[in-house]
Amino acid sequence: MTTSPPRKRDGDQRRRELCDAGIQVLAEHGSRGLTHAQVDRCAKVPDGTASYYFRTRAALLRGVGDRVAQIDVANLRSLADRPHDPRAPFAHLAELTLMQAHGRGLMLNRARHELLLNAARDPELSGPAQGLVSEVIALTRTAIARLQPRITDPDLLDAQTSAVTTFIAGVFLRFVAGDQTFNDPGKLSRQLQAIAEAAAHEYGENN
Amino acid sequence: MTTSPPRKRDGDQRRRELCDAGIQVLAEHGSRGLTHAQVDRCAKVPDGTASYYFRTRAALLRGVGDRVAQIDVANLRSLADRPHDPRAPFAHLAELTLMQAHGRGLMLNRARHELLLNAARDPELSGPAQGLVSEVIALTRTAIARLQPRITDPDLLDAQTSAVTTFIAGVFLRFVAGDQTFNDPGKLSRQLQAIAEAAAHEYGENN
Repeated sequence: MTTSPPRKRDGDQRRRELCDAGIQVLAEHGSRGLTHAQVDRCAKVPDGTASYYFRTRAALLRGVGDRVAQIDVANLRSLADRPHDPRAPFAHLAELTLMQAHGRGLMLNRARHELLLNAARDPELSGPAQGLVSEVIALTRTAIARLQPRITDPDLLDAQTSAVTTFIAGVFLRFVAGDQTFNDPGKLSRQLQAIAEAAAHEYGENN
Repeated sequence: MTTSPPRKRDGDQRRRELCDAGIQVLAEHGSRGLTHAQVDRCAKVPDGTASYYFRTRAALLRGVGDRVAQIDVANLRSLADRPHDPRAPFAHLAELTLMQAHGRGLMLNRARHELLLNAARDPELSGPAQGLVSEVIALTRTAIARLQPRITDPDLLDAQTSAVTTFIAGVFLRFVAGDQTFNDPGKLSRQLQAIAEAAAHEYGENN
């Protein structure tokens, strides 16, 4: 009765370590370099460990994808918990975005792109990937709604979320490509706000 | 004296066919699936042809990248040659963007992302890739300048180009992920214009 929960916890911990190693392997060597053996080496665990926890390559990719989403969701939730400056409503979202330019954020960013391209080709991965993207978009939408308490029209919020997340996706891709044009949090915050306002204006003109 | 030019032309033609096959292989099977043998099969040429023209995998990737850039540049140049409606200055750019959602455009779009991720990891590919990205950005800038003949400040045009190309990169990524949210050329045209105007406004406030 008392041994099962700790074992389950150990297994979860090991899975997480393997997935974190998988993120690093994907970022450094691409989807082409992602093998169970490479994940074992990167996680510094005995040969065969990754295959034990993730029987197939698709299972490994799904596990790594879930881990990336888990980190993204935690970051976006932390955004919702922080007090914000009403004069710079998009400051925290801009700050989160710029975290994807360097270090651990850039590693996640690279791995996320590799997973996305894989999911686009593999029906076994595309369902879960689509679910995760939807979850991240929903959380961004919640953040945007909170940034503009006076805006309550759900279709308008959808239009603003679509425009802002599309721009952020473009910024993420620039970081992956080694382009450091975007590095000023104040400027990016104002740009995100301008895009949200432009989306609101366009929505107002057509509805 | 007369035999060399046709041979050169045949070689160029064969190289182009192999690179077009490479684009298809990258789009369908990812960087992981790109091999000389797979390119030979896809191009329906004898085994060993791709290896003859592109000795290494890096040479093959560079060739495919050059071909993608050649097509992108031709598309952007065609934009500069077309008459445009002053009431919808971004209509052609929106139309070109939406071409990346389906068919041959989507294939190019997928291959472009694979090449970009490869270049981010491989210093041998990153130099040329950066050059090609710069060329595409410069051509987009020329198109944006032409769309707004009254704007001549080069730094303002750079700011607008950066914002507009970043948004377009995000739209391209949505297409790769199978997201068809963006499908209305009139709406996208107005969005691109609003982003260019927001960038001009932001620039005006800070300069």
